Amino acid sequence: MRIAVIGGTAAGPAAAAEAARQGAEVVLYEQNAHISVGACEIPYVVAGQIEGGVEALEVLTPEEFEKSRGATVRVQHRVVALEPSKGRLVVESLIHRSRHDEAFDRFILATGARARRLGVDGEAAPGVFSLRGLEDAAALKTWLDTEPVRHVVVVGGGFVGLEMAEAMRDRAIRATILDTRGRVLGLDIADPMIAPMHEAMRARGVHVRAEQVTAIETEATGRVRAVRTNQGELIGCQAVIVAIGIEPRTALAESAGVHLGETGAIAVDDAMRTNVRTVWACGDVIEVPRVVDGNAVHWPLAPIGRRTARVAARNAAGARPADRFTGVTPSVAVRAFGIEAAHAGLSLDEARASGFDAEAIMVQHWSRVKMVPGSKPLHVRYVVEQGSGRLLGGELVGAEGAALRANVLVPWIRAGTTVREIAEEMDLVYNPPIAPATDPLRIAAAKAMRSVKGAGR
Amino acid sequence: MRIAVIGGTAAGPAAAAEAARQGAEVVLYEQNAHISVGACEIPYVVAGQIEGGVEALEVLTPEEFEKSRGATVRVQHRVVALEPSKGRLVVESLIHRSRHDEAFDRFILATGARARRLGVDGEAAPGVFSLRGLEDAAALKTWLDTEPVRHVVVVGGGFVGLEMAEAMRDRAIRATILDTRGRVLGLDIADPMIAPMHEAMRARGVHVRAEQVTAIETEATGRVRAVRTNQGELIGCQAVIVAIGIEPRTALAESAGVHLGETGAIAVDDAMRTNVRTVWACGDVIEVPRVVDGNAVHWPLAPIGRRTARVAARNAAGARPADRFTGVTPSVAVRAFGIEAAHAGLSLDEARASGFDAEAIMVQHWSRVKMVPGSKPLHVRYVVEQGSGRLLGGELVGAEGAALRANVLVPWIRAGTTVREIAEEMDLVYNPPIAPATDPLRIAAAKAMRSVKGAGR
Repeated sequence: MRIAVIGGTAAGPAAAAEAARQGAEVVLYEQNAHISVGACEIPYVVAGQIEGGVEALEVLTPEEFEKSRGATVRVQHRVVALEPSKGRLVVESLIHRSRHDEAFDRFILATGARARRLGVDGEAAPGVFSLRGLEDAAALKTWLDTEPVRHVVVVGGGFVGLEMAEAMRDRAIRATILDTRGRVLGLDIADPMIAPMHEAMRARGVHVRAEQVTAIETEATGRVRAVRTNQGELIGCQAVIVAIGIEPRTALAESAGVHLGETGAIAVDDAMRTNVRTVWACGDVIEVPRVVDGNAVHWPLAPIGRRTARVAARNAAGARPADRFTGVTPSVAVRAFGIEAAHAGLSLDEARASGFDAEAIMVQHWSRVKMVPGSKPLHVRYVVEQGSGRLLGGELVGAEGAALRANVLVPWIRAGTTVREIAEEMDLVYNPPIAPATDPLRIAAAKAMRSVKGAGR
Repeated sequence: MRIAVIGGTAAGPAAAAEAARQGAEVVLYEQNAHISVGACEIPYVVAGQIEGGVEALEVLTPEEFEKSRGATVRVQHRVVALEPSKGRLVVESLIHRSRHDEAFDRFILATGARARRLGVDGEAAPGVFSLRGLEDAAALKTWLDTEPVRHVVVVGGGFVGLEMAEAMRDRAIRATILDTRGRVLGLDIADPMIAPMHEAMRARGVHVRAEQVTAIETEATGRVRAVRTNQGELIGCQAVIVAIGIEPRTALAESAGVHLGETGAIAVDDAMRTNVRTVWACGDVIEVPRVVDGNAVHWPLAPIGRRTARVAARNAAGARPADRFTGVTPSVAVRAFGIEAAHAGLSLDEARASGFDAEAIMVQHWSRVKMVPGSKPLHVRYVVEQGSGRLLGGELVGAEGAALRANVLVPWIRAGTTVREIAEEMDLVYNPPIAPATDPLRIAAAKAMRSVKGAGR
């Protein structure tokens, strides 16, 4: 069986390797020069923290991949048409500028996502960057290494924007974040939880402004020199980093008759198969069901990409028994400016939008026993269903112990665990330099028992 | 209703406060001068790391407790007899050296545990310490503050022994651990996992010797001067810390006709009631059922003490509906010499003793994305049931990210989660400075799928 995998950043290589392991003849197509790219490491490469620079982002070269994974790799090849009914692709070689057809039995779409654009004048100017691939990282790093950059405007206060602002400070470059809501950490972390991060940023001179970019102004040389905002402000800068989210690259799929879901990403069944019977899809281009409520979500993170890639590849290759994707329990964490922030499950808004009669509670406690040196404030917020007392989501923010504690929420949320069970029945490790005798996760649950309607005894 | 709570270290005050909250008239008896003592903080007080010294171990004074919790406190009062059938206690005042009877409807035993003794000559000499209460901590700290102590022998390489050896190094005192098995971390952490801790200890000059103490030798003044071992060695020292475990203080219970379980601790039902209908028990003096296999275990840790105290107190006070204790999933962690070690669930030996057809697998991976600064080796070991692939227990050791990851194992073990589910379906946070894209917990599960019989697909 011949399988084409289209897209080589992360999910594509994972799918190609798994399909080859299952005995299929696999060709992996990627329009850029690299495959197997660790995009999440870009901020640390740009900051100069990772040895080997941008090269280090390439986990395997195409040659290494072919040799170790047993799949053929075609880099700098763009798939310009997918014709499932004819069992073929039209491929354009970006090296030879030539097109040809190739015949396959089955197709796996792993075309990923692209950075959202601002849609303002000047966005194409040298010095304006968005960050998806190795090439983007290399271009930004070269710019910072060679241009006299003193101030960078980061547009978007989500996790990536935050990481990039920190990367600038690590390079001793001033940074300002422009975010329409005037805050960082995105919607996964509720407003009352963000103060510690804002404080840590202020301490390092990074300011967040509630402004929207209306234009990017350039020098006579064409280089960026400032952003203009909806407040009429002109903010001088020598680089702009646009980090306002990503959107799935669905054009090829749509042209092949593959249906999209409500989120705008490709709709797949639990075998990662699309409505077109010879086409599977995985990674950042698809939507997946969320465990708590079954709603489809676009949750483009590397671990989910790997999981959906494995399921798509095994099923496309005909492995028996069929592999099923059981859904995602959203969970995410960031560490920047010495503060960790993490989220699992549903936010309060998501829970309510999903029809839950939900409330949120918040506690501030300590990462370790308070009187032990190194203990830091830890903020915990739970989203809880009224009546049942079921935990639907949680957020943690603090200088230590926030990120890994979010992992514990995942099996609790998946299993429908109640705050009473968490407060009264759950074992959590205790040791003065590690955690208080009653862990903040249980203290928050006890508060929810007292204050969420129907969650107590 | 009048309830007597006997024992005031940790579970006793928790039980007294809860019973008073339920409307009972409560008297709390404690033979020492303090109640509400944080015994787990002793090593950090002795090390001089906690402000306020040993006083800081007292969470509430008896007066503060009476005022805020609404229970009467009798410190320096020893309960010398418990006569449930007559509804009375015989109490000895250690202040007035007088005895009197007191009438109660119900009794809660929270007599805790005592340090095991070596049973060798010289054990009573000045300079030999074991560490259970505030008084023990104060005595050791005074000894170290006032005597010319250059070298301390710590007997026992369990978690407490390890913490005390580190406390000595923090005070620039040499320390040697004597452990009959020649290793630290106790049976919860398997032999192949202990190397990183031993290495970190060696780097700070702490050696572990596989020797047993046969006698403690003293100066003419009576002070300790050396320990003699079963290898015929004489190890000079100016203090000995005995940390070879604890045993439940059951004498009062036994004399009242309360039955003990197989572990030698008090047997209780899931309401924390003993065989004597007016007597409940909680804390370190009882045994509790282990979730994985239902076996009774003596698991004397503070969080379990608090949980069993609440159940005992609510039920003794007649709260409705009755409170049930659903069992313990053993979980424990330590941080010493810059290394964290943690354990959850069953060890391989425990699993086999319990009748499971179990195997263990081990992986070494990284606490963060490997190429990010600060990433440290992380060792994970899983105990897995053959055939089902069910996770029965896990151990983690590493310089960071070991302790809090053990918390995730608890709900997995409780729910009977398989290594296939962990490897393929579990969400765990990912971010380069926090965790690899495939978390070590999932990497270990994938290895178990491959190598434990029947655990794969």
